[in-house]
Amino acid sequence: MRVTPVPLEELAGWRADPATGDLRHASGGFFTVEGLDVRRPGWAVPGWTQPIINQPEAGILGILLRRRGGEPELLMQAKNEPGNPEGAQLSPTVQATRSNYTRLHQGRAVPYLELFRRPRGRVLADVRQSEQGAWFYRKRNRNMVVEVDGHVEAAEGFRWLPLRLVRELLSVPDLVNMDARTVLACLPLLGGEPERAWDGGGFGAAVARSRDPRAGARHGLPELLSWLSGIRSTVDVHARPVPLNQVRQWRRADGRIAHESGRFFEVMGVRVEAGGREVTSWSQPMLAPVGTGVAAFLVRRIGGVVHALAHARVEPGYTDVVELAPTVQCTPGNYDVLPRAARPPLLAEVLGAPAGRIRFDTVLSEEGGRFFHARNRYQVIEVEEDPLPGHPAFRWIALHQLDELLRHSYYLNVQARTLNACLHALAQRPASAAVGAPISAAA
Amino acid sequence: MRVTPVPLEELAGWRADPATGDLRHASGGFFTVEGLDVRRPGWAVPGWTQPIINQPEAGILGILLRRRGGEPELLMQAKNEPGNPEGAQLSPTVQATRSNYTRLHQGRAVPYLELFRRPRGRVLADVRQSEQGAWFYRKRNRNMVVEVDGHVEAAEGFRWLPLRLVRELLSVPDLVNMDARTVLACLPLLGGEPERAWDGGGFGAAVARSRDPRAGARHGLPELLSWLSGIRSTVDVHARPVPLNQVRQWRRADGRIAHESGRFFEVMGVRVEAGGREVTSWSQPMLAPVGTGVAAFLVRRIGGVVHALAHARVEPGYTDVVELAPTVQCTPGNYDVLPRAARPPLLAEVLGAPAGRIRFDTVLSEEGGRFFHARNRYQVIEVEEDPLPGHPAFRWIALHQLDELLRHSYYLNVQARTLNACLHALAQRPASAAVGAPISAAA
Repeated sequence: MRVTPVPLEELAGWRADPATGDLRHASGGFFTVEGLDVRRPGWAVPGWTQPIINQPEAGILGILLRRRGGEPELLMQAKNEPGNPEGAQLSPTVQATRSNYTRLHQGRAVPYLELFRRPRGRVLADVRQSEQGAWFYRKRNRNMVVEVDGHVEAAEGFRWLPLRLVRELLSVPDLVNMDARTVLACLPLLGGEPERAWDGGGFGAAVARSRDPRAGARHGLPELLSWLSGIRSTVDVHARPVPLNQVRQWRRADGRIAHESGRFFEVMGVRVEAGGREVTSWSQPMLAPVGTGVAAFLVRRIGGVVHALAHARVEPGYTDVVELAPTVQCTPGNYDVLPRAARPPLLAEVLGAPAGRIRFDTVLSEEGGRFFHARNRYQVIEVEEDPLPGHPAFRWIALHQLDELLRHSYYLNVQARTLNACLHALAQRPASAAVGAPISAAA
Repeated sequence: MRVTPVPLEELAGWRADPATGDLRHASGGFFTVEGLDVRRPGWAVPGWTQPIINQPEAGILGILLRRRGGEPELLMQAKNEPGNPEGAQLSPTVQATRSNYTRLHQGRAVPYLELFRRPRGRVLADVRQSEQGAWFYRKRNRNMVVEVDGHVEAAEGFRWLPLRLVRELLSVPDLVNMDARTVLACLPLLGGEPERAWDGGGFGAAVARSRDPRAGARHGLPELLSWLSGIRSTVDVHARPVPLNQVRQWRRADGRIAHESGRFFEVMGVRVEAGGREVTSWSQPMLAPVGTGVAAFLVRRIGGVVHALAHARVEPGYTDVVELAPTVQCTPGNYDVLPRAARPPLLAEVLGAPAGRIRFDTVLSEEGGRFFHARNRYQVIEVEEDPLPGHPAFRWIALHQLDELLRHSYYLNVQARTLNACLHALAQRPASAAVGAPISAAA
């Protein structure tokens, strides 16, 4: 795949609407880049305008699962996307926008799609979830895992891989793509998994035990839901689509749209030439973040049960105002140009966490079909004390409660879902290594 | 309370926006009447425009619960609203929009409100739910039940009533108001209730047993959630706010806005003079439906467990496209002016149900603060056979599954919630009467 930056003005098939400046494809499909006006009275940053991607149609992110000698295996795809920093990534069996499957691309049919549109096997997960609410306006995708009984051949570019291996590969930078991670996060505990919880005294064994729905929790689920209901009912956030040419402090120059501070992100154009994709070449706008982000869960054992410290986070593009996010989720560089009071609590603690406390630490990249080289450093950091006791926007949530919440839409944001998938990986008993050893990528 | 119809042009404090025609209060608060443009390609009615109420703020509907000698009691309010057909109704302890409690009314403080804003007792239910998606644009309210331990005095106009009695009163026409019904519907099975399930062979005993979460179900919850996820991901509905003066086929005449067919509803104005309310007089627009609606659950015992036939229904004002609705929910008179193909399945079966099959049948009214004399005939009708086997938009859902879904937002619509509260009432063992006797209102 060859990806060449192109000025927005020269993107084949795309044009700026003369009245609004919104970037649209001539077909009316795919997505648009529009403006968003955000008001949050009383906050450190009480309002701003920004460009945002509007892609109203829900796509399907689906993984096929089979059992081989009791071992679950996933049908994964090696798929390149123009925004991937390092080429092809391990992707779900199906990753299709509706434009894909209504053939707006005029490309080839999406392999395996019908196994998700009309599942014949057992549906293990099927839930619509949001994506980046800072970059997408009300984007949602259907996350599915379907278990197949019969024989399903791996087509070219696809391979059946043990679930265990896919989870281990989460610790390789930029390898398992965002769409695969969010689907993995929604996969519930499989038959056999509770029995596999191991007795070691290490962190991984504690994580495994903490996925058991019978394990205890600091707060009951009704109490957590009530906390979130209260926040969602009272948070004052107004996000309103506006014409792209009405965003303030953003400048169009050199064929891109950038914030005048140079921070946050840019809207850029690319021309893509590819061999093994649905069509062989296309052009599109992309959102290119400035700087690498941080997404970290502080975790703590309470009564032996691992809990993650979730943050009830507002992002303007969420369908439902607030979702549960990692303890810290931000791009530290942005705070050079934002008021000091806007800095998230615990950022310093995360950036300075001692190595001996870090249970997971890998840079992973976000959806390469819309975001250009968007990377976050995902971390799980174990602490002994509660660093924010009684903070109204944070709660300790047991890992089995995260699993329960993931059966429903819009509770965990996409970054928290990646971290949940990473926690599931940490729960795996090391195949050969000593109990408690850190996981490592399979060769 | 004296309610006088007033032409929309003469409503004190309200005016039509000169550019859009939208009806707004001078304060900017309360709610607005705007237009909505709805497109549903491929449906019998593929598109229309209509007036709609936009009230973006989430209010609190809260009921206090206490135990007296083990018996749960609710603090209910006798409250009149201008749209009530028969005067005061039995209402929740608190029924407050945010305008209420930020004192936009400049009226008195809302009694008991702080017990919900900062609950000290046990929160038994706390979940945001939608309201009428045909009349409200993305309206949501927080439904709460808080159990108090200490002594809470019933203020003037309030009374502690046994939960059992409140449920019995659901069978009195126009008595328990909509807000109370939706909160009652969200109240989970209380400690003690499963033990009360009674052994009789009648319908009520079967309902009681069917609220036990250990009872079986025709479809597992993951299967039901997957069905709904699929529908929500693929249904093509586009609802877009438009200026009120751009709705087509609606005419403003005689101080009202009405559909040219005379069907659906009217937007009218009222002037209200009241004694015991927050303020003593005010004016407001109201939505006055034409004709009485029907909302009926067909229910069936499957393996002894009562299931309701839920309809995955699109209403344009829903936050999330589709919610689970009664088997039949409509205003039959509207179909005189709509295409025959738009008639809902099973309407004839409901209208012609034999008396011996009807387990609940009461006309109840909808929110009297926004709707003028809006009434629906709520029915529970028991059937032996599945009248729509395999229909993609209908599923049999066990009663304990309805309870489970009500812990989360936007699964059951407001009419289905009323019917769920009525089913809870049917589950009560008659105090003195023979097992299986129909419930009747307490004197």
